[in-house]
Amino acid sequence: MKNTSDRNVLLIDCPDAKGLVAKISTVLYQRGANIFSNREFVCPETKHFYMRTEFSGTTDHSELLSALHDVRPGGEINVRLAERCRKRLVVLATKEPHCLGDLLIRSTYDDLNASIEAVIANRVTLGPLVEKFKIPFHLVSSDNRDRVEHAMEILNIIKTYNPDYLVLAKYMRILPPEFVQEFRNRIINIHHSFLPAFIGANPYKQAYQRGVKIIGATAHFVTTSLDEGPIIGQDVVHVNHRFTSSMMSKAGKDVEKTVLAKALELVVNDRVFVNGNKTIVFD
Amino acid sequence: MKNTSDRNVLLIDCPDAKGLVAKISTVLYQRGANIFSNREFVCPETKHFYMRTEFSGTTDHSELLSALHDVRPGGEINVRLAERCRKRLVVLATKEPHCLGDLLIRSTYDDLNASIEAVIANRVTLGPLVEKFKIPFHLVSSDNRDRVEHAMEILNIIKTYNPDYLVLAKYMRILPPEFVQEFRNRIINIHHSFLPAFIGANPYKQAYQRGVKIIGATAHFVTTSLDEGPIIGQDVVHVNHRFTSSMMSKAGKDVEKTVLAKALELVVNDRVFVNGNKTIVFD
Amino acid sequence: MKNTSDRNVLLIDCPDAKGLVAKISTVLYQRGANIFSNREFVCPETKHFYMRTEFSGTTDHSELLSALHDVRPGGEINVRLAERCRKRLVVLATKEPHCLGDLLIRSTYDDLNASIEAVIANRVTLGPLVEKFKIPFHLVSSDNRDRVEHAMEILNIIKTYNPDYLVLAKYMRILPPEFVQEFRNRIINIHHSFLPAFIGANPYKQAYQRGVKIIGATAHFVTTSLDEGPIIGQDVVHVNHRFTSSMMSKAGKDVEKTVLAKALELVVNDRVFVNGNKTIVFD
Amino acid sequence: MKNTSDRNVLLIDCPDAKGLVAKISTVLYQRGANIFSNREFVCPETKHFYMRTEFSGTTDHSELLSALHDVRPGGEINVRLAERCRKRLVVLATKEPHCLGDLLIRSTYDDLNASIEAVIANRVTLGPLVEKFKIPFHLVSSDNRDRVEHAMEILNIIKTYNPDYLVLAKYMRILPPEFVQEFRNRIINIHHSFLPAFIGANPYKQAYQRGVKIIGATAHFVTTSLDEGPIIGQDVVHVNHRFTSSMMSKAGKDVEKTVLAKALELVVNDRVFVNGNKTIVFD
Repeated sequence: MKNTSDRNVLLIDCPDAKGLVAKISTVLYQRGANIFSNREFVCPETKHFYMRTEFSGTTDHSELLSALHDVRPGGEINVRLAERCRKRLVVLATKEPHCLGDLLIRSTYDDLNASIEAVIANRVTLGPLVEKFKIPFHLVSSDNRDRVEHAMEILNIIKTYNPDYLVLAKYMRILPPEFVQEFRNRIINIHHSFLPAFIGANPYKQAYQRGVKIIGATAHFVTTSLDEGPIIGQDVVHVNHRFTSSMMSKAGKDVEKTVLAKALELVVNDRVFVNGNKTIVFD
Repeated sequence: MKNTSDRNVLLIDCPDAKGLVAKISTVLYQRGANIFSNREFVCPETKHFYMRTEFSGTTDHSELLSALHDVRPGGEINVRLAERCRKRLVVLATKEPHCLGDLLIRSTYDDLNASIEAVIANRVTLGPLVEKFKIPFHLVSSDNRDRVEHAMEILNIIKTYNPDYLVLAKYMRILPPEFVQEFRNRIINIHHSFLPAFIGANPYKQAYQRGVKIIGATAHFVTTSLDEGPIIGQDVVHVNHRFTSSMMSKAGKDVEKTVLAKALELVVNDRVFVNGNKTIVFD
Repeated sequence: MKNTSDRNVLLIDCPDAKGLVAKISTVLYQRGANIFSNREFVCPETKHFYMRTEFSGTTDHSELLSALHDVRPGGEINVRLAERCRKRLVVLATKEPHCLGDLLIRSTYDDLNASIEAVIANRVTLGPLVEKFKIPFHLVSSDNRDRVEHAMEILNIIKTYNPDYLVLAKYMRILPPEFVQEFRNRIINIHHSFLPAFIGANPYKQAYQRGVKIIGATAHFVTTSLDEGPIIGQDVVHVNHRFTSSMMSKAGKDVEKTVLAKALELVVNDRVFVNGNKTIVFD
Repeated sequence: MKNTSDRNVLLIDCPDAKGLVAKISTVLYQRGANIFSNREFVCPETKHFYMRTEFSGTTDHSELLSALHDVRPGGEINVRLAERCRKRLVVLATKEPHCLGDLLIRSTYDDLNASIEAVIANRVTLGPLVEKFKIPFHLVSSDNRDRVEHAMEILNIIKTYNPDYLVLAKYMRILPPEFVQEFRNRIINIHHSFLPAFIGANPYKQAYQRGVKIIGATAHFVTTSLDEGPIIGQDVVHVNHRFTSSMMSKAGKDVEKTVLAKALELVVNDRVFVNGNKTIVFD
C-alpha cells in the first residue's frame, strides 16, 4: 500500500497520556513526513486526546499505521489515514430546494470536495431540479407507509451507492434508530433553528410567536435522539418585528444553506471529530 | 403647558383603522410641526397600530394631545408625548461588575441619555465600584430573608428615586409578581443566553454541555413569567470546542453588556413598544 | 388604467417641505387606500424627502398619480407606482458560477420576485450551467475586441429582452460610460471586498497581503466611476492567518452570493432609493 | 531558575525545517512536561515556523530553554518562555473615554490578565475618570510642543513604569519613529475603521460620505507607517441610511472597545506572533 499523495490527513484519538504529541510526530518525522498542519485537543472532561495532522512525503502507509498504533502499546487508539480522495455523498430531501440546490451548484464548481452520488426524496417535487444536474433521483413516497419500512427501503437504495456520508438537506422525516445506527456519525442534518432553541416542528413559527430578534440554523450529526446530536456548526441572522413567520423562514433559508455547506465541507475534509455529544472542529 | 423643544417624540397606539397616518400627520401639520422621522407598524396578528413620530416646532402640547385623541373619537387610543428629557434609572445588581461597570462608564460620557440615580444590590461586592462614581449604593442583603419581603424592601428604596426604568444588570434574584406589576414594561433584564435557549440557571454550563457553537445574550422586559418577557434585543458570539464553560461565560460577558446597553438606549429614547409578548423596535 | 391589485408600492421623492406626509397620506386616504407600511426619510444633507408606502384598495391609479403630483403644485416631485409584477432581469457574467448559480437556483423556487430573462457572458464557461435552467445564454467573446464595441454588442442583445435591471454576477469587465448611462441606477454589481477597501483587481490577494482579519463583499449600483457607485448592501466574514489568498476567495464567495441576492431582492421589491452617491434602503 | 508553575507558555519561531514538532515536543516530553495545548503554523510565503505550547510540570527552565535552542544547532531560533505572570500596561489616551473606561472596568474584575500601571494623556479630560480607579494619571499637554519632543517626554514617563505593552486607547497623536522603535511590536492601537478602509483622520465622516452599510474597528500593532501595522483583530457593525456621521461614531465606539479589549487579551496571553506585516493569532 504505497501512496505518493503530497497531502495526507492523519486522525488519531485515544485516552490522553504524556508524550503523545512527541511520539506521534517522531513516528512521522522518522519516516520522512513533513507536517504542515497539526491540531490537537484534549477534552478537559473526558481526558480524551484528539489530533489531526496534515503531512506530505511519500510513505508506506500500512507500516506508518502500524507504527502509530504502537504509540500506545496494548492500549486503545484510533488511527485513521484519510487520503484526500473526494468523499461520496447521498442526499435525502423532501420538497424544499434551497439547501439541495446550493449543494448541486457547489458540485458544479467543485466547491465541496465531495460528489453527490444520488438524491432520494419522499416527494416528487425536487426531481426536475436534480435531473438538470444528471444526478440519479429516487422517489420513495412516504404516503401510507410504515415509518421503518419506508426508511429501510431508502437504506437499501443508499447502500447501492456506497456513500461516505448522508446529507439531510431538509429531509422532513424522522429516521428510525435502525437506520441511524447504520451510519453512525455519518449523517449530517440541517435544523432550521439555533439548537437547542425551538426543537421540533415549525421552529420559525415558534420563533415568531416568541418574538425573538435572532433566528438561526444548526448543522449536526444525527443520532437516535431527535435534534440532540453533536452540533457541527451554527449561525444566525437578525430579524425584527416586521418579520412574519414566513419572512423569518425565507431569511432562515440563506443561513440554513450556508451552515449546511460549511459543516459538510468540514466533515468531508476530515476536520470533525465526535466527542460524545459534542464535536471537535479543526477548521 | 407650552414647550419650545425642537425635538419631540410622539408615541401613539390604537386598534388599526383606515386613515390613521393621514389624520395624525394632518393634526401635526396643522399645528406647524415639522416631522423629520415617522415610523409605523400594524401587527398582522392583533391588527393594532403603532406609530412613533419625531417632530420639531413650538406647539401647545396639551392642545395637541387633545386633538390627537380626537383622531379616534370615542375609541381606544394611547397618546404619549415623550419630551426629550433624560430618563431616570435605578440599577439592581448582585456581584458581577461587567454590565454595571459598562453602564457607569457610559454615564460618565453621557452615552445613555439617562441618569443612574442609584444602585441597589443584595451583595456588598459592587459597592466600591459604584462609589467611585458618586452614585448612591444600597445594600439590601438577601441572606435569611423571605423573597417577597426582601423585594418589597428594595421596592421602597426604589420609589424614593422615582425612576422611569429599572435595570437588572445581572441581578440574580427572581422578582415577585407584586414587584413586577409596579413597574409593568419598565424593568429591563439581561439574560445570559439567546432565549428561549437555556432558560433558567447556569446557561453557560448548559451551553457547554450541549456543545453549542454560538452563545448569546437577550435583553427583555421582565414579566411575571421568568425569562418569558418581551425581547428587546439579542446578539451572539461564536465559540468552539476549546471553550470551557467559564471561557463561554467570559466571552458572553462582552455580549451581555453590549446587548443590555443597546436595549436600554432604545428604551430610554422611546423607541420600543410592547405588543403583547413581543416588542416593536423603531431603531 | 384601473388596477385591482391588493398590494401596491408608491415611491415618492422631492425636496423636503412641511406637511408632505400629511398631504400624501391624505390623498391616499381620500381614495380609500389602506396603508399597511409607510417609510420616510429626509436626508439631513440634501434636505430631500423620500417615501415608500405599501397600500391596498382598488383605486384609479392615473387619477391617484395626478393627485399626488399636486401635493407640490408647480414643484419638483417624482411619483412612481410600482405595481407588484415580477421584474425582468438580464444577468452578465464571466466564468465564476457561484453568484449566477445561486440566482438560478433561487429563480427555480421563486425566491427573487424577478425572472432571469437571459444570461450574457464573455466566456463560454457558464453556458452549460445556464442551459440546465432553459434560460437563453449569449456568448459575446471579448477576445480581441474593442471595449466599447464589445459592450455595445452586449447592450443590443440586452435591449431585446427589455429588462428592468441588469445584474453583474461576477462580470469581470469594466462597462463604458455609454453603456452605464443607458441603465442609470439599474445595474447592480457585486464587488468582492467591503468597499472602499481593496478597490480594483484581486481584492482577495490585496486582503491576504494586508493581513486583514475580515473580508467582505459589497453590492452596489454601477456608475461611471469604477467601484464608486451607491452601496446597496455589504457583509463580511472573519478570516485568520491560516487563510491563503485562495481560501479567502472561497470564503468570500459565500458572502458575495448572499450579499448580491439580498441587494437584488431589495431592488426588485422597490425598496431602494438612490440619493446622490448613497442609497436609502427601506428594508 | 526553577519554576513550579503549572501553566507555562512556550513560544518558538524559526525558519521551517523537517521534524521541528517532533524535536520540540520530545524535548518537552523528556523533561516530564505535559502538553495540553499546542498550536503551530508555517507561513506559506516566508516558510517561517511558529509554535505556541502550553504545558505543565515542574521543570528547570534554563535547562529547557537551552535544550530547545539545540533543536536547530547553529541556526536561528527564537525561544521564549512566557511565565504566566500578569503583564504590565501603560495606556495612552486623549479625551475619548469609551476604550479607556472599558479597560479600567475590566481591570477591576481582573478580566485582562494585565495591570494598568499608568495612564498618560495629552489632554486633561480623562484625569477624573482615571483617578476614580487610583491609577496614576499623567498629563503631558501637546499644546505648542514639538511632536518628537512631546513624545519623548511621554517616553520618559513610560519607562519609569517598565511596561510590557503600551495601549493607545484612542490616543489621537502620531508617534514618531524614535518612539515606536523603542517598543517594537509592543504598542497596540485601536483604529476606528476596518483597515485598510478609511485610513487617516475622521474615518466615520469618510464612511458617512461614502454611504457604507458597515463600519468597523481594527486593533493593530503600531509601526512607523501610520495605520499600516500588523492587524490583530477586527470587527464590524451594520449601519444604514439613517445613521449620521455622529451616529456612526457612537455605534463604532462599542466595536472599538470590544476589538481593543479582545486584541489586548490575546497579546497579554502570548497568543500573537508578528509575521512581517501580519499577525498569527493562536486564539
